[in-house]
Amino acid sequence: MNIGAIRAARTRMGSAIRQTPLLNAPLLDRVAGRRIFVKAECLQVTGSFKARGGWSAVSALPPGTAGVLAMSSGNHAQGVAYAAAAHGMAAVILMPFDAPEVKIANTRAYGAEVVLYDRATEDRDTLAARLAAERGLALIPPYDHPEVIAGQGTTGLEIAAQAAAAGIDTADVLVPCGGGGLSSGIALALAAAAPAFRLHTVEPEGFDDMARSLASGSPQRNARASGSVCDAILTPTPGRLTLPILATHAGRGLAVSDDQALRAMTLAFRYLRVVAEPGGSVALAAALFAEDLPDTVICVVSGGNVDPALFAAALERSD
Amino acid sequence: MNIGAIRAARTRMGSAIRQTPLLNAPLLDRVAGRRIFVKAECLQVTGSFKARGGWSAVSALPPGTAGVLAMSSGNHAQGVAYAAAAHGMAAVILMPFDAPEVKIANTRAYGAEVVLYDRATEDRDTLAARLAAERGLALIPPYDHPEVIAGQGTTGLEIAAQAAAAGIDTADVLVPCGGGGLSSGIALALAAAAPAFRLHTVEPEGFDDMARSLASGSPQRNARASGSVCDAILTPTPGRLTLPILATHAGRGLAVSDDQALRAMTLAFRYLRVVAEPGGSVALAAALFAEDLPDTVICVVSGGNVDPALFAAALERSD
Repeated sequence: MNIGAIRAARTRMGSAIRQTPLLNAPLLDRVAGRRIFVKAECLQVTGSFKARGGWSAVSALPPGTAGVLAMSSGNHAQGVAYAAAAHGMAAVILMPFDAPEVKIANTRAYGAEVVLYDRATEDRDTLAARLAAERGLALIPPYDHPEVIAGQGTTGLEIAAQAAAAGIDTADVLVPCGGGGLSSGIALALAAAAPAFRLHTVEPEGFDDMARSLASGSPQRNARASGSVCDAILTPTPGRLTLPILATHAGRGLAVSDDQALRAMTLAFRYLRVVAEPGGSVALAAALFAEDLPDTVICVVSGGNVDPALFAAALERSD
Repeated sequence: MNIGAIRAARTRMGSAIRQTPLLNAPLLDRVAGRRIFVKAECLQVTGSFKARGGWSAVSALPPGTAGVLAMSSGNHAQGVAYAAAAHGMAAVILMPFDAPEVKIANTRAYGAEVVLYDRATEDRDTLAARLAAERGLALIPPYDHPEVIAGQGTTGLEIAAQAAAAGIDTADVLVPCGGGGLSSGIALALAAAAPAFRLHTVEPEGFDDMARSLASGSPQRNARASGSVCDAILTPTPGRLTLPILATHAGRGLAVSDDQALRAMTLAFRYLRVVAEPGGSVALAAALFAEDLPDTVICVVSGGNVDPALFAAALERSD
């Protein structure tokens, strides 16, 4: 993995993947007591950075590939479905039958075939292997894949260029972290394009496997698989490819509470006028509420696919 | 008024005014049955296009001007306050004492002195004239002012360039309309930079003074002064400067219901992940729900300063 793979992914994206804006607001800075710049990946096509990795992986497949297969209950599903449709390629997405109806509907709306399974009685990996073999589908993993990491890393190229244009010489860069695909891709991009910037992963409290893995030097596992409102970034362990990249290129990992993530979500509504999902808001939460950060912080808001009822409840609570 | 004034305003803005993105979403197009591109001025600094006109007018004042005065209960107040503070200039904003607390607080947070008055017992214009004379302040009107129109017109320059980059040759351009500052500025810009595009103003039903003025050829007045959720764009009559520009450069005016504006607001939440206010959503509502529009429509979402409780209620109703 190196910067060349990221630049190549960016070239393959053309205008199909949006350069998202780097937003800021004086009144948000006042709340935080520091300057905050927000890389708004919630404004990416499909509503999250996952379209980058999906596009990168799909566009790197050999000619003649019959189609792609992905397993996801959310943003990765939509990113892969979007990319496959644009490449005229079949997409089969394995989703648990109890995934949110809106995410199933959106994935279908992008043209994918959704195969529902029962988490309690069926083994997802066995099902995936069978489908892939039967239909000649290429599996697109959510993070532990070089082309997926390269695709997410294009976010980092844009951060480096936009920060330079805004006159930002040095900053901490905070990134929401599940398996580490986005964090490791951005870390690689910044190491080459903005080496003065220091990256920190941000996870929900109780699900900070990456932070503990970076601190201890070996892969750690979360005690629980669910129980945070930040559903998009609850992965059990760091990726096999992503952890070594972050061990080399990232600082210590941070964690925030669900309450802080929800408060960040409502402050993004009020001062930046973007819709963020809870898991996508954890880096902004750290930028707002964490101690020991420098005067200038860049954070990624990684997605905005949020249930309207949850969003409404958070707004009403903050009033 | 000509394109030169708009280009000059853009030059004076530098990086203080953001080039907002032109957003689109395949799933939103499916709802509409046509291609929709959204110029997201809700992502502008201060949360609306008003920062453009405020900046343009303040930056055009002669050196040595003591400060500026504006009358507004909302977005114009914040735009002028932001621009004045950045120019190291005093700003006095006359606001009704019963204006939303959050808008008063935000205007103060940008550094302006807010003077509250009683709509029932005090005459706003008399008060403004006295304050301006006593303190040597320059009045910045909300729309009927050449430099304000030129500033709002910079939105049109960006639309022309972004549409060309997206390969859009011909389109209708729909713009939320109160007094007509944004519409007339964009109309002037497009006449020079994208003459194949046709502009339509969009107003709330019952407050379509501009549409009726354009249809009849003479200024018309609204029967009521309030009674729509689209508070930001309820002006009694077209501007003296703005109407002739639109009579020359715009097509027929459109109108949408409050319910359509609120539905557009919730669809922008779901598919574009931006926060729009009701008045800022009327052009998107027309793009989604109006008949007799072409296959490709560009609409401006003009602002995103919306009360959280109102936004939450709209989301819950749409669920």
